[in-house]
Amino acid sequence: MTSSGHVLALCGGVGGAKLAFGLAHLLPAEALTIAVNTGDDFEHLGLSISPDLDTVTYTLSGLADRERGWGLAGETWNFMAQLRRLGGETWFSLGDRDLATHVLRTLRLAEGADLSAVTTEIGGRLGLPDIVAPMSDDAVRTMVDTEGGALAFQHYFVREQCRPRATGVRYLGADAARPSLRFAAALTRPDLAAIIVCPSNPFLSVGPLLALPGVRQAIAASAAPCVAVSPIVAGKALKGPAAKLMAELGIEPSVEGIADHYAGLIDGLILDVNDVSLGVRVEARGVVARAVPSIMTTDEERIALARTTLGFAAELADAATRKTN
Amino acid sequence: MTSSGHVLALCGGVGGAKLAFGLAHLLPAEALTIAVNTGDDFEHLGLSISPDLDTVTYTLSGLADRERGWGLAGETWNFMAQLRRLGGETWFSLGDRDLATHVLRTLRLAEGADLSAVTTEIGGRLGLPDIVAPMSDDAVRTMVDTEGGALAFQHYFVREQCRPRATGVRYLGADAARPSLRFAAALTRPDLAAIIVCPSNPFLSVGPLLALPGVRQAIAASAAPCVAVSPIVAGKALKGPAAKLMAELGIEPSVEGIADHYAGLIDGLILDVNDVSLGVRVEARGVVARAVPSIMTTDEERIALARTTLGFAAELADAATRKTN
Repeated sequence: MTSSGHVLALCGGVGGAKLAFGLAHLLPAEALTIAVNTGDDFEHLGLSISPDLDTVTYTLSGLADRERGWGLAGETWNFMAQLRRLGGETWFSLGDRDLATHVLRTLRLAEGADLSAVTTEIGGRLGLPDIVAPMSDDAVRTMVDTEGGALAFQHYFVREQCRPRATGVRYLGADAARPSLRFAAALTRPDLAAIIVCPSNPFLSVGPLLALPGVRQAIAASAAPCVAVSPIVAGKALKGPAAKLMAELGIEPSVEGIADHYAGLIDGLILDVNDVSLGVRVEARGVVARAVPSIMTTDEERIALARTTLGFAAELADAATRKTN
Repeated sequence: MTSSGHVLALCGGVGGAKLAFGLAHLLPAEALTIAVNTGDDFEHLGLSISPDLDTVTYTLSGLADRERGWGLAGETWNFMAQLRRLGGETWFSLGDRDLATHVLRTLRLAEGADLSAVTTEIGGRLGLPDIVAPMSDDAVRTMVDTEGGALAFQHYFVREQCRPRATGVRYLGADAARPSLRFAAALTRPDLAAIIVCPSNPFLSVGPLLALPGVRQAIAASAAPCVAVSPIVAGKALKGPAAKLMAELGIEPSVEGIADHYAGLIDGLILDVNDVSLGVRVEARGVVARAVPSIMTTDEERIALARTTLGFAAELADAATRKTN
């Protein structure tokens, strides 16, 4: 367990939010920054929608629907039913309660607030300390190049259900975007104790954060160990299209593939116990492997994996200290 | 009964919509234009809201909540509950289903459509022929001057519940606004057979229509009779603040006051049977009076009052024809 120092988590949606929940349970608010992907944000029906930010906020505040993985528990869908009747676009589901988040965010952004401030406001109203930050207040839009042409992220992910074969992923606007103040501050804190890459899709969720100017360099330059938790277990993604997408982009959908993908960035990789036999291959790539039960269904499992991940990072930090002394 | 020719109704919200329902039941779509007040339209939470247009559209399509008078029947309020939790403004109630209308309208306006086109689109989806037109596609905003200062209409009407004492009513933007194409076309049709002023608040609902450039003149110049249905019965408004507001603005809250207010504009005034004894005083003001049961609770009562109103207008037209021959 990291007994002192700040922890920075790089986080996407559903899978990442589960680990973030565990981290938030274990760490005091001042010791944690959760930098969240905004590459899948989009404008829809005139509303500014930030799916990963909302998933993290709802998960941390205990309001998320556990079955569905996204949106609010006990949600109703009367807006969608009426919108269908009126002939509006209905491929992206917006719950009645969830709409309050999107309407308020859209209003605040129009009033001149930045996404960081809106995220803090909404999280605060839902009882969260100020630990969730968008990766950037500038617009970054993930595009998936497919055999049928380029698709905006949500069109690929939700409307087309990830069916088109991907040929590449791009993060439009990333070159000119700046990390948000809190993300940038956490990256360069002198007391940074661990950087944790949550079990989120490497291309669609973590990729946008790493594409921001200076982020890879800051992680590489940090004295803090960087630990990823594999989103791939036994060759499959626990949730979402990570395995399919990795295969289409020519990367083995396995923990070795994850280790290759994050080579040069991470010091350690948490694998699931199902993949314990692959630890040797991961370590052959210069990444310390640790196999643990990594499937998070209950809150206890989320907290246990967070505890394991923090402990693993502390071990790596100790080993590095011993090496340099 | 007007057997041929076009009918133009000037209409506000709840009370007016009931008579409009009766007119729409009796007349073929091509023989009716319902020009609706947009002076109480406003931007709220970033959404473009047109309360009277929606009340008319919902009432004509049979979807309106009959108890409440506004909004959709069977509405749910989960968006509002969550918005309250998030600290958003909740003084104006927006139902979950109703929100679909506002989101779609806001989107279409942002895409460049005018309010007329959006009204036609939404009405069409709800099964209505193209008979409902906003009074204007330009913004007109009713302001109520009160002893405590000027209030935008919805702030006066909904947020302050009409409590402040009014000293005047203004229609911001009316001078520069043009009547919508369909309203203007109906006003000048050579086959115009009747202009009906629905039982809506004279200041807050009908006033904005009459404040548009050319409208009063077109009504005065029209060969068609103009008939108002009194929104005041036995010195009280059937719905809303009309009586209070008339008194505050120095006009007697009675059918005589209505006759005075519309003097020079209307040829006939429908009063409720409760006010039959006041018919003489109305006629002393040069307005033909007709006392009938005017309280509309059931659909049958709405249709009956519409039939009576159309018949009264036809009588006035016949009398005018005889006089000029």
